[in-house]
Amino acid sequence: MNILILGGDGYLGWPTAMYFSNRGYDVTVVDNYFRRNACTELDVGMLYPVPTLVERAKIWHELTGKEIKVVIGDLSDPEVMRSLFSGTVEYSWALDRKFLGIPETVIHYAEQPSAPYSLINYKYANITLTNNLLVTNNLMFALRDFSRDTHVIHIGTMGEYGTPNIDIPEGWIQIQRNGRKDTFLFPRQAGSLYHTTKIMDTDLMWFAVRMWDLRITDLMQGPVYGMETKDSMIDDRLRTIFNYDEVFGTIINRFTVQAIVDYPLTVYGKGGQTRGYLNLNDTLQCAHMAEKTPAQKGELRIFNQIMETFSANQLAEKVQRVGKAQGYDVKIDHIENPRKEAEEHYYNPTYQGLIDIGVEPHYLTDEVLAGMFQVAETYKSNIRKDVIFKGITW
Amino acid sequence: MNILILGGDGYLGWPTAMYFSNRGYDVTVVDNYFRRNACTELDVGMLYPVPTLVERAKIWHELTGKEIKVVIGDLSDPEVMRSLFSGTVEYSWALDRKFLGIPETVIHYAEQPSAPYSLINYKYANITLTNNLLVTNNLMFALRDFSRDTHVIHIGTMGEYGTPNIDIPEGWIQIQRNGRKDTFLFPRQAGSLYHTTKIMDTDLMWFAVRMWDLRITDLMQGPVYGMETKDSMIDDRLRTIFNYDEVFGTIINRFTVQAIVDYPLTVYGKGGQTRGYLNLNDTLQCAHMAEKTPAQKGELRIFNQIMETFSANQLAEKVQRVGKAQGYDVKIDHIENPRKEAEEHYYNPTYQGLIDIGVEPHYLTDEVLAGMFQVAETYKSNIRKDVIFKGITW
Repeated sequence: MNILILGGDGYLGWPTAMYFSNRGYDVTVVDNYFRRNACTELDVGMLYPVPTLVERAKIWHELTGKEIKVVIGDLSDPEVMRSLFSGTVEYSWALDRKFLGIPETVIHYAEQPSAPYSLINYKYANITLTNNLLVTNNLMFALRDFSRDTHVIHIGTMGEYGTPNIDIPEGWIQIQRNGRKDTFLFPRQAGSLYHTTKIMDTDLMWFAVRMWDLRITDLMQGPVYGMETKDSMIDDRLRTIFNYDEVFGTIINRFTVQAIVDYPLTVYGKGGQTRGYLNLNDTLQCAHMAEKTPAQKGELRIFNQIMETFSANQLAEKVQRVGKAQGYDVKIDHIENPRKEAEEHYYNPTYQGLIDIGVEPHYLTDEVLAGMFQVAETYKSNIRKDVIFKGITW
Repeated sequence: MNILILGGDGYLGWPTAMYFSNRGYDVTVVDNYFRRNACTELDVGMLYPVPTLVERAKIWHELTGKEIKVVIGDLSDPEVMRSLFSGTVEYSWALDRKFLGIPETVIHYAEQPSAPYSLINYKYANITLTNNLLVTNNLMFALRDFSRDTHVIHIGTMGEYGTPNIDIPEGWIQIQRNGRKDTFLFPRQAGSLYHTTKIMDTDLMWFAVRMWDLRITDLMQGPVYGMETKDSMIDDRLRTIFNYDEVFGTIINRFTVQAIVDYPLTVYGKGGQTRGYLNLNDTLQCAHMAEKTPAQKGELRIFNQIMETFSANQLAEKVQRVGKAQGYDVKIDHIENPRKEAEEHYYNPTYQGLIDIGVEPHYLTDEVLAGMFQVAETYKSNIRKDVIFKGITW
């Protein structure tokens, strides 16, 4: 099986590449180093340096004998996207430079993934908008023109739903009105411009599925935590990119690092904001199970990709408790909310579909958190307190 | 009152400019000649040549003594958009070149408006996507940064709703589920990439309204017909841009021209496609009434801007009947549908909100159609049969 991973250098992309490579898939990764370049530009820190994608592919090959083909290129350029399906692609690194063939599955992570980044100012808003939508649109048209059978697994976000006052289904809702009924995408309304681009991805994908009978699975993911996967444990140089800053660091990852350097946990406002979370290892499982049971032609299949829900306060208390048990004096600070969001709200999403196709959830246990503390502690000397909180407001 | 019209050179833009100018408003129009340039590039015909926007503003001033300030610039460039609010704008033509001040109202027409254009191929798809979304996003951020009180009147499209199997409300729907309820945007699903960008505009505007308390009216417009407005009747050179081709010509306008040159009316497939329509003069009225009763701060107010509904077959038969009465031998041709759309479907939209704020509808009477025939006949020698139907499929 031939699998193409767009955004293969990112927090999810590289672990996904190793995961599928280890299971016998032919894997190609594509990235333009957006995340690394943005981290440099914004001066936000990574917990440890990470080798280039080409270097990581070489290390992976050395250690496992397996090949992950690498393309360094900007997928918002339609010609780069199309080359991956037309066969004109030039690999930046590969053992065998012959075209691997049209992929059976594409995993699409190639988006600017940060809410604060998208709202730094109008320029970053436009970068987010054009990058995310052009990549998705280029993918839709490449599939239309070259391969309507390829299964796309797209990473959406639970943030597309916002925090409505009714239960959140998995993507779809039947509406009855004046004695008639029809099934629709559950109405979406997000809390950041980044999250809004994910809604717009859904608009594009739903159009493409209806027009061209594409097959797409949209994984509505919650914030991911964790730094290790089974595949990365063989060598520290295979660890994924790990941010602990406000821009690219997700909340549990950030809190763990803050706890270690005695930086009070930054709970925004009242801290009643409830979201669904999942372990990095479960992201890989979800992609794998989605790949094994592809969507039908003409189907936009949507799963809510979370394993449990917590409020910001619950997360802070968990990190505090586990940190204290490890000897850290963890403080919690309720800072003025830089975002415009409900700090107390109803939240009841369904998340059953992925379990039904075989995903076995991991949970945020004290042991898991303690493991994260241990890895982060190893890199403590790299942590820059000055980049943890920038205070980007909207 | 100071009113800014984005897309002031287009089919709706220029008549809107004259309409408000004639009623004592200070009007500024902005355009980058996208439509004209696209017509040249695609070799599609206009019924008659139209003076440049600067030339039209000069003619308007000569004839009425009134000033319409002109800015030629690309609003997908955020600096051009921001200059209109920051005061750094340079007018391409104006009697008084001093900044007019921050507009109380912005009418936003500045989008690529054609479904077939958006689906010629992936390049035109990307042009549509970036142009339409960057203009809207630039407007949202300019308002956030310079003027949160300005009322935006945006032209949406009834096509955002598609053809659902339930009644279509004016933008919003209350959903009850498991004993709880909330109000949402009515779920949208469009039949072209262009229409999908309008859904994405809605996503962007709804985000901006919730975050920054902007005030926006979204007019969900159906296809517009007509070529004359009261203001243009004083001089032929003031007529609006009028396309009769498949790319930029709307159906009633196209059918009228086809009838005159003995080109069978091109009904797509079975012809049961039902849509809502309105007269160009009613578009102006709707913009005016919306301007007089602005949306509240933090409100995305949505009106369905149509006056009556017809199937494609009904329109073809109407044009045929009126044409025959005028001595034309009008034929109707059911051609293979180049689009993927339902040719028979339920369609029951509400359109009451604009009536409630004072719009007095005009209808597509035989007299109105006969008037269109008469004007088009004047320009018969300009009509190129070869550009009427290109057969852009999706």
